[in-house]
Amino acid sequence: MGRGRAPLTATVVHRRDEWASAMAEARGGGPVGLVPTMGGLHGGHLSLIRRAAAACPTVAVTVYVNPLQFGPGEDLARYPGTLDADVEAAAAAGARIVFAPNGEEMWPEPPATTVHVAEVSEAWEGASRPGHFDGVATIVAKLLSLAGPCAAFFGEKDFQQLAVVRRMARDLSLPVRVVGCPTVRDPDGLALSTRNAYLGPDERAVAPALYWALLAGKRAVEDGRAADPEEVAGAMRDALAREPRFELDYAAAVDPETLRIPARLGGEVRLLIAAQLGAARLIDNIPAHSPLPPADHEES
Amino acid sequence: MGRGRAPLTATVVHRRDEWASAMAEARGGGPVGLVPTMGGLHGGHLSLIRRAAAACPTVAVTVYVNPLQFGPGEDLARYPGTLDADVEAAAAAGARIVFAPNGEEMWPEPPATTVHVAEVSEAWEGASRPGHFDGVATIVAKLLSLAGPCAAFFGEKDFQQLAVVRRMARDLSLPVRVVGCPTVRDPDGLALSTRNAYLGPDERAVAPALYWALLAGKRAVEDGRAADPEEVAGAMRDALAREPRFELDYAAAVDPETLRIPARLGGEVRLLIAAQLGAARLIDNIPAHSPLPPADHEES
Repeated sequence: MGRGRAPLTATVVHRRDEWASAMAEARGGGPVGLVPTMGGLHGGHLSLIRRAAAACPTVAVTVYVNPLQFGPGEDLARYPGTLDADVEAAAAAGARIVFAPNGEEMWPEPPATTVHVAEVSEAWEGASRPGHFDGVATIVAKLLSLAGPCAAFFGEKDFQQLAVVRRMARDLSLPVRVVGCPTVRDPDGLALSTRNAYLGPDERAVAPALYWALLAGKRAVEDGRAADPEEVAGAMRDALAREPRFELDYAAAVDPETLRIPARLGGEVRLLIAAQLGAARLIDNIPAHSPLPPADHEES
Repeated sequence: MGRGRAPLTATVVHRRDEWASAMAEARGGGPVGLVPTMGGLHGGHLSLIRRAAAACPTVAVTVYVNPLQFGPGEDLARYPGTLDADVEAAAAAGARIVFAPNGEEMWPEPPATTVHVAEVSEAWEGASRPGHFDGVATIVAKLLSLAGPCAAFFGEKDFQQLAVVRRMARDLSLPVRVVGCPTVRDPDGLALSTRNAYLGPDERAVAPALYWALLAGKRAVEDGRAADPEEVAGAMRDALAREPRFELDYAAAVDPETLRIPARLGGEVRLLIAAQLGAARLIDNIPAHSPLPPADHEES
């Protein structure tokens, strides 16, 4: 899309009631697309906004750094982003409304309510960041309530978050169509992430090793016909170990729906990895397609 | 309202999508009133429906016995009510739409999502019925999601439930106006409750003692100028002890917002009581107005 044709402004609202009104008005014109963000918009967010704009006459972006999803000692205080730049970028990508509430507007009193999604939230990021997905589910439920019926676009980059949001939306019958969108990568393979800003130049240079480790796992699944999830995890661990600056958190081959490690691999698989690199905790994931039959088929 | 003028039928829908459509259509005509019930409609429910009908052009009633809010060994299996009778009674009271899903329709898969409201849910019914308010909050969140924007009418009979729903609605910015409605009583003072059907004739005869115990607490607050919550609770306990068939669960004088026992009574107070009578666990509550100044005023 040529920048000359792109709109450069969006309506920015800071109050919940104004946002609800703007969204209700937008729905008069058809489906509304929603892209929830914590600001610091990068190419991954912009791809979500462009996908939403291709599907919906009006696209709204939320910019709110949700303290509920940060643990003690995490990077809440230094989470990057400036609203003016975010609004300009969002508008250029096709957003018409930006909701940018402050903390007092979102939580006039400390919330007593928590939305908890069991099972799919428990392992991986849920285990490494206790309370994280409760915070995600609670704020997404609130943002969706305020938005009203919409299609909400989430990146596959945060694959477990997407699974948690999907499950919550189903269980609570939220009036939302959850749309997962492919991860956007730099040319060297590093998945775009707001947290990449924490990387120094030397760290940035080696950061794509996280993606290479996923690719090693994918080769084990697809070419090596590995049936043992632990063998695939080992291939990812070995690949990442070649870059000693990384401190691995987890690497796993899981069922893409439940995010559980299956007894044996077959059919669709998701490869997950998380590691610390300098000041940044990076996560990434890719799909893999095992040539072996899915476990369900074997049993029957 | 003369019965001859009252409508005797309502549209009954059993599917979630049909209900969402019916509610969306109803909103074209103005605010929609929602009365969530577990069926077994009695005069208390009908008073909620009449209040909703007085305020809203369209009133919808949900009839769903929510298993999530029953504990093991509670009365889920024998909870009374027949849909035909409920529809007729609801329609006569002014309801236009009845949503009566079965379990499979509400939960096509066992839900992984729980809405938990801390603080206000913890004592009293929350302590006596672990998980009860998680079940209430989760199903109400789902029913409200399916209903869309509405005014929802709840009885003060379940005072803590009302407080939990209000808090959840505020925290999650649900598009609902929560309206609390006064408890309806039989002429002898017994609060109407579906569970009164469990009482045998002898038990029914003594059941109003629960209300008399609340009135004893109210006299202690209003005439006796009791400042000590424990003194008021003692007055309620002593009054109920005169009827030995009751087995007291709790009696308390609490802050009507937080449901906590204050250090001293002053201003608005809520009196709560719960007791077992034969096969029925009965709860009731009333407001009391202390002539003493509220605690806030004393401190400043």
